[in-house]
Amino acid sequence: MQPVRIGIVTVSDRASRGEYEDLGGPAIREWLEKALTTAWEGVARVIPDEQPVVEQELKDLCDKEGCCLIVTTGGTGPAPRDITPEATEVVCEKILDGFGEQMRAVSLQYVPTAILSRQIAGVRGKSLIINLPGKPKAIAECMEAVFPAVPYCIDLIEGPFLETNPDVVKVFRPKQS
Amino acid sequence: MQPVRIGIVTVSDRASRGEYEDLGGPAIREWLEKALTTAWEGVARVIPDEQPVVEQELKDLCDKEGCCLIVTTGGTGPAPRDITPEATEVVCEKILDGFGEQMRAVSLQYVPTAILSRQIAGVRGKSLIINLPGKPKAIAECMEAVFPAVPYCIDLIEGPFLETNPDVVKVFRPKQS
Amino acid sequence: MQPVRIGIVTVSDRASRGEYEDLGGPAIREWLEKALTTAWEGVARVIPDEQPVVEQELKDLCDKEGCCLIVTTGGTGPAPRDITPEATEVVCEKILDGFGEQMRAVSLQYVPTAILSRQIAGVRGKSLIINLPGKPKAIAECMEAVFPAVPYCIDLIEGPFLETNPDVVKVFRPKQS
Repeated sequence: MQPVRIGIVTVSDRASRGEYEDLGGPAIREWLEKALTTAWEGVARVIPDEQPVVEQELKDLCDKEGCCLIVTTGGTGPAPRDITPEATEVVCEKILDGFGEQMRAVSLQYVPTAILSRQIAGVRGKSLIINLPGKPKAIAECMEAVFPAVPYCIDLIEGPFLETNPDVVKVFRPKQS
Repeated sequence: MQPVRIGIVTVSDRASRGEYEDLGGPAIREWLEKALTTAWEGVARVIPDEQPVVEQELKDLCDKEGCCLIVTTGGTGPAPRDITPEATEVVCEKILDGFGEQMRAVSLQYVPTAILSRQIAGVRGKSLIINLPGKPKAIAECMEAVFPAVPYCIDLIEGPFLETNPDVVKVFRPKQS
Repeated sequence: MQPVRIGIVTVSDRASRGEYEDLGGPAIREWLEKALTTAWEGVARVIPDEQPVVEQELKDLCDKEGCCLIVTTGGTGPAPRDITPEATEVVCEKILDGFGEQMRAVSLQYVPTAILSRQIAGVRGKSLIINLPGKPKAIAECMEAVFPAVPYCIDLIEGPFLETNPDVVKVFRPKQS
């Protein structure tokens, strides 16, 4: 069986120019390595905060690379160069507001500036795209908050069946009605 | 006095073809029968997950049937056939984000997959439209969470004055400033 | 040093015609006087619930008056004349959903009708615009809930450095990564 493919996209001008070490992408990979028991491989990208570039990369990861899940880090704040949510919204057919609400609610337990994060999640075809914050600690907090719902979401959009280590994160799949 | 009219719309391909018993619509009716003391009559519809059909039905219930409140069940998830929020957004003049936020927050106390629900509420003319989930248990949880604000909302859009049994749900009307 | 400029916009048909005393604008000013230790001056406006008028006023306060922060009061409900969020959305480049979510969550602790408020916040150029409710008590509750994040937001959009009295509101600025 082919491993499940997961896109990991670091959106950062400085990291894409090599002026800054990408910490967000490796933090996502590390978290997924602990959480997933299904065989998977990461498809990592480090790109600048340019909306057309981010849109194209997200589309490629969905449509050409066959990623069932794409996780971004960076570019979700209020500054002019922060355009990750805008790019995500353009490429998605459906936006799932509950992800952003829940990630902000969890981050608010740690920092009041969580309300400045515009992170969203949405569906393009059979792929789920989730925006995460830039800092490794906040990445882990957000992943723990939303990942219990991720495998069932991917079931509903007809992606692969994901399983996790319940000691890290417990997946929830409602009984079918 | 004419009874107040309330639309109850089940959005489900299977239920509309008779392959599946509609449980959501009757659950809404049952909850409203317990909650409302104002004389009312339900206008029930069971329709497929087709966006133009849902839009037209919502418009008819608002504009022709004179429903002050329309409650939908089903079609709010991330799957391609889930289009109830899209249809609701198109026909409404104003979206009230607080309804979706509050319904998801309440459902999250029971299931982590609540973040997958895209349910919204909005206003069209003198009608309030609220999307509810598909399962009877979740319908009751969401109604209990938002209904205290529903009669005052309908006051503000110049609809009829709704009263409830306070043992089921306590209506809140702020003092006018 | 020039004092920082803050716009205070009361959106109310009745107050703008002088039929009703503007309570919201003075409540905002009073709260800011207690909270801010940075020298500031208010630029107050009282305007009717007309969307083009509100849009033009917000644009002027951002682009001509040089306000780094603009706070509105009134016009965020579900009634047809409530158009403050619509005007805010039009003039902003980015909407920060976390503000509205957090203000509603806090107001819900007091009144279940908080879900009817459509208040939003967003960024236009180097200005942050925040919609507040109409009532002085709710204004203070919302300001306390979101203001800890406001100075850092204004830093990120390259506005002036705001400082507060920590006995009233503690500003949070994350360490730069």
